[in-house]
Amino acid sequence: MDLSLSCYACGATATLADGPRCDCGEPYWVRTEPSGFDWPATPERSLWRYRDLLPDVDPSGLAAGAGGTPLVRAPRLDDDVGATVHVKYEGANPTGTFKDRGSAVGVAAAAETGDDAVGTVSHGNMARSMAAHAASAGVDCLVLVPADVPTERLSLLARYDPTILRVDGDYGRLYRESLRIGSEAGVRFVNSDAPLRVAGQGTTALEIAESFAPDTPDAVVLPVSSGGHASGVWKAFRDLSTAGVLDRVPRLYFVQAAACAPIAEAWGRGDDVVEPVEAGETVAYSIANADPPSGNRVLAAASETEGGVLAVDDDAILEARRALASSAGLFVESACATALAGARRLGDRGDLVTDDDVVLVATGTGFTEREVDAPGVDAETVPLSALAETVTRVV
Amino acid sequence: MDLSLSCYACGATATLADGPRCDCGEPYWVRTEPSGFDWPATPERSLWRYRDLLPDVDPSGLAAGAGGTPLVRAPRLDDDVGATVHVKYEGANPTGTFKDRGSAVGVAAAAETGDDAVGTVSHGNMARSMAAHAASAGVDCLVLVPADVPTERLSLLARYDPTILRVDGDYGRLYRESLRIGSEAGVRFVNSDAPLRVAGQGTTALEIAESFAPDTPDAVVLPVSSGGHASGVWKAFRDLSTAGVLDRVPRLYFVQAAACAPIAEAWGRGDDVVEPVEAGETVAYSIANADPPSGNRVLAAASETEGGVLAVDDDAILEARRALASSAGLFVESACATALAGARRLGDRGDLVTDDDVVLVATGTGFTEREVDAPGVDAETVPLSALAETVTRVV
Repeated sequence: MDLSLSCYACGATATLADGPRCDCGEPYWVRTEPSGFDWPATPERSLWRYRDLLPDVDPSGLAAGAGGTPLVRAPRLDDDVGATVHVKYEGANPTGTFKDRGSAVGVAAAAETGDDAVGTVSHGNMARSMAAHAASAGVDCLVLVPADVPTERLSLLARYDPTILRVDGDYGRLYRESLRIGSEAGVRFVNSDAPLRVAGQGTTALEIAESFAPDTPDAVVLPVSSGGHASGVWKAFRDLSTAGVLDRVPRLYFVQAAACAPIAEAWGRGDDVVEPVEAGETVAYSIANADPPSGNRVLAAASETEGGVLAVDDDAILEARRALASSAGLFVESACATALAGARRLGDRGDLVTDDDVVLVATGTGFTEREVDAPGVDAETVPLSALAETVTRVV
Repeated sequence: MDLSLSCYACGATATLADGPRCDCGEPYWVRTEPSGFDWPATPERSLWRYRDLLPDVDPSGLAAGAGGTPLVRAPRLDDDVGATVHVKYEGANPTGTFKDRGSAVGVAAAAETGDDAVGTVSHGNMARSMAAHAASAGVDCLVLVPADVPTERLSLLARYDPTILRVDGDYGRLYRESLRIGSEAGVRFVNSDAPLRVAGQGTTALEIAESFAPDTPDAVVLPVSSGGHASGVWKAFRDLSTAGVLDRVPRLYFVQAAACAPIAEAWGRGDDVVEPVEAGETVAYSIANADPPSGNRVLAAASETEGGVLAVDDDAILEARRALASSAGLFVESACATALAGARRLGDRGDLVTDDDVVLVATGTGFTEREVDAPGVDAETVPLSALAETVTRVV
């Protein structure tokens, strides 16, 4: 398999063997041929429903279970946001986050080409996802984590039995370093914005669009970190527009945590290049990438779709997380509650209006993060003999 | 809405207003009209795809996100079981378990008929599911829990903001008591084997069957507790058989934890009536129902389909849980690992053979139960400068 790649910024083309980045410095994505694409008639529910817009690989095992997540209406959040609110619940993926879409494509490709192992630079959702998909495919998985990460943070990852290496040194350098080492050692690193991962991540947008077809949502609000998911979503909407199945591309809004918001800051300055920042602490640690490799591509996506990039603080994030559980029945990771916190801000400033259909992408389940902001429990004790009268009183 | 019900045991019919149990003592289920049913052509992914076999209610919000879970091949478990292994991963439901299927139908019905509140007798997966669906629908949710349940066990449930009452007294009596109190106070209790819940739970089987169509799996292995899910699965396969879309009904095998196995013990004695037991401690506490209200119905299902009921011990359950994560990429709740532990036993004794397609129903995610059997983490620390040689050595 040698896929054809292209650069969104300068238009250069390449193959997968050329590596993930263009000479102009920007990341490649996988070229697709969307002309003639239409919604498939198959009952297939996973992301492989959209094979015609995906790399030509054959999924097996867990890969066939990625995607196909629900889009849920959340009417009790409409007034709050000032729009018609839908939530794309990515927690329904096999390891609880959207990362499974990219891992499914990346690991299936590795298995098909006979790579010895797959790898990733992560100690969170992406690592867990890669390890799970590798376990199912019977391929070794190498996970590079910072030397100082607490052992208990690796316990969930260890369930899937990957090879974990703690790397002592500049963890930020690992993104590029891993690619060099991987190509020498026969390990396919499917990092945050690798072309194969981005191709898989785009299926979030394909599913959203098909759920609305023949209509189109007005806006999509997505947490952003490295920019890989954002890039995939943008590319997929462009493909659908090229294919003629969408009359327009939704406005794409990307949300960061205020404590680590390099892309939002660049957007605020009107720049088209993201500068690294010094990251502060945030409850949305999963999206706290201080030097996002696809940051410039996110700025281009926001600009081309007439959307934007914004940042929200931890109080707003935690309040949004509580509201998603208590008003929509969806308990999510703090990082992905940024989508609702951002949508509230967009409503306040008039970027979302009452008639707008807005889709919040809830990128991951909260079950992996139960200890964050745990609520007090308010529960009266009643004797069984007094239950009937108590029930009548409380409901 | 007044649904028509029937008794599997004596054939009596009733309406929903008559309550959930027949005069003969056995539970009713919802009557369906499967004649003429065929697999739908709609791209709908949720359980509402099978509206023709469901109560006539209109889902909104979270209800529309239940079901549509992946069926995943697990080739690395084939040799272990001695059959071709597929896993139906119910952890992909919005609150992480199969319970959402029944809650979706039950809460949608309550919202449609204008009930003041819904209720449930549970402090685990069912409670969380009911609270989430009620939150989305804007209906109050009353959860009755034992007086002595530790507060931290209720913290996850409290995220969805239900009314929790600790009941001091015989918790076992609450199953029936709640129905009486509910009908007086206008609270619709959708307990473990309530007809509306069982109707929703049956969609697990409809999805499995459609995934195999036009073929049929040879066997389905399912953890069993109260017997509600088991009943729904049995009923759904019967319906499909009546409709003529299945050439036969798979053998249904039900698995309990050895420490609390009233249904398996009755099966072992050759009885068709389950006697309550004194429950011991087990890691599979979610399925430790010592007096299962639909236990007799489970015996009938196992008998009619030429399957069986068996029990597995905690060591076998934990080992199966580890294997599902490390060989299939699926991290599940201990209770649902009983399905794999049971399948291994069935393979050993020749009830499953190499050519058999067997479906293990993995009823819930393990993310809610991270602390159980947490693994040690084996991770070497390497300096960045020595990473390349280390990678070459370990992969």
